[in-house]
Amino acid sequence: MTPVTFWFEFSSPYSYIAAERLRAAHLHAPQVNWRPFLLGPILKAKGHDPAAFDEGSPKRAYMWRDVERLAEKFAIPFERPRIFPQNGLMAARIATAFPNERWLVDFVCAVFHAAFAHGHDIAEVETLHDILDGMGLPTEGLIEEAEQPGTKKALRDATAEAQSLGIFGAPSFTVGHELFWGQDRLDDALDWARHIHLP
Amino acid sequence: MTPVTFWFEFSSPYSYIAAERLRAAHLHAPQVNWRPFLLGPILKAKGHDPAAFDEGSPKRAYMWRDVERLAEKFAIPFERPRIFPQNGLMAARIATAFPNERWLVDFVCAVFHAAFAHGHDIAEVETLHDILDGMGLPTEGLIEEAEQPGTKKALRDATAEAQSLGIFGAPSFTVGHELFWGQDRLDDALDWARHIHLP
Repeated sequence: MTPVTFWFEFSSPYSYIAAERLRAAHLHAPQVNWRPFLLGPILKAKGHDPAAFDEGSPKRAYMWRDVERLAEKFAIPFERPRIFPQNGLMAARIATAFPNERWLVDFVCAVFHAAFAHGHDIAEVETLHDILDGMGLPTEGLIEEAEQPGTKKALRDATAEAQSLGIFGAPSFTVGHELFWGQDRLDDALDWARHIHLP
Repeated sequence: MTPVTFWFEFSSPYSYIAAERLRAAHLHAPQVNWRPFLLGPILKAKGHDPAAFDEGSPKRAYMWRDVERLAEKFAIPFERPRIFPQNGLMAARIATAFPNERWLVDFVCAVFHAAFAHGHDIAEVETLHDILDGMGLPTEGLIEEAEQPGTKKALRDATAEAQSLGIFGAPSFTVGHELFWGQDRLDDALDWARHIHLP
């Protein structure tokens, strides 16, 4: 069984849907690596303003209705956020600093819930404090570690790696050399991992 | 059962996938109206150059790989076209001129096959001649009708209607006031039509 890498961005509602679906499926899924990255620098490199892109457009309006329907379909709590896109930098650094902790997936999903189910601002350090405290973790030490230069570099490197893999949107899944874009492709990515073994 | 409108664009490979899936499903599907429209004017109104958009980008490279995988998954013949995007204006006019003919769906799928399975240029009138001739239809008269001012206006009106419905990509599906974008949403659109009845 080939490992799957799940590339997610905390500001992306479709990443939230994918994270919830993946967590719900985890008992039967192939090995999945949860990798945070930043979509902003990739969009900026293409000349797009990540915040303004699609703002006020039919595509943006469609996205929210689409996410609402998907959330209902998969029984995932969802509330359209007041702030969009949110700045997920600090959350991404925390997730980057602790890739092998057993609490990683719970933390990631809690951040997504804060942003897309509870209307909290995940750019605020208090929001992240509350999440880590609520999980019974040593919040101060974790946030300090997340702010170390090595962690910042690791997140920049992850973003560069995502870009080098041809990733241009979130969420994305990589299975060997195959790239799948969008929560729509989650099942296809898992099927690819289950049936195709790289040499 | 609410009717489904299938909005397609002949230059769109995902419209091809959706058309083939819809045709294969037709015995069990709700009533489906096949509506050609032109995506180009909608993209231009947003300031995008439809031909250059994504050209040479990771997103474009991904699209072809994604379409290849989908074609294999749904057992649909596919060959990456030499020319992209193709100009589907004449084909769209023919489909627009004869919305109620029993041969419409066969014609639409034959045009998509020419573009995405046989490597033909659907902008060439000979390609469309061959398709109509092969279907045993009175080709000359049909093409003459497709070039009438009333047909040209009907296609412009269809494109304006698509835009007014919030459509920004192809294929799209409308079910009452619900919009679904992408061949990924075909099943969701059909489910919506089966379970939801507008007042």
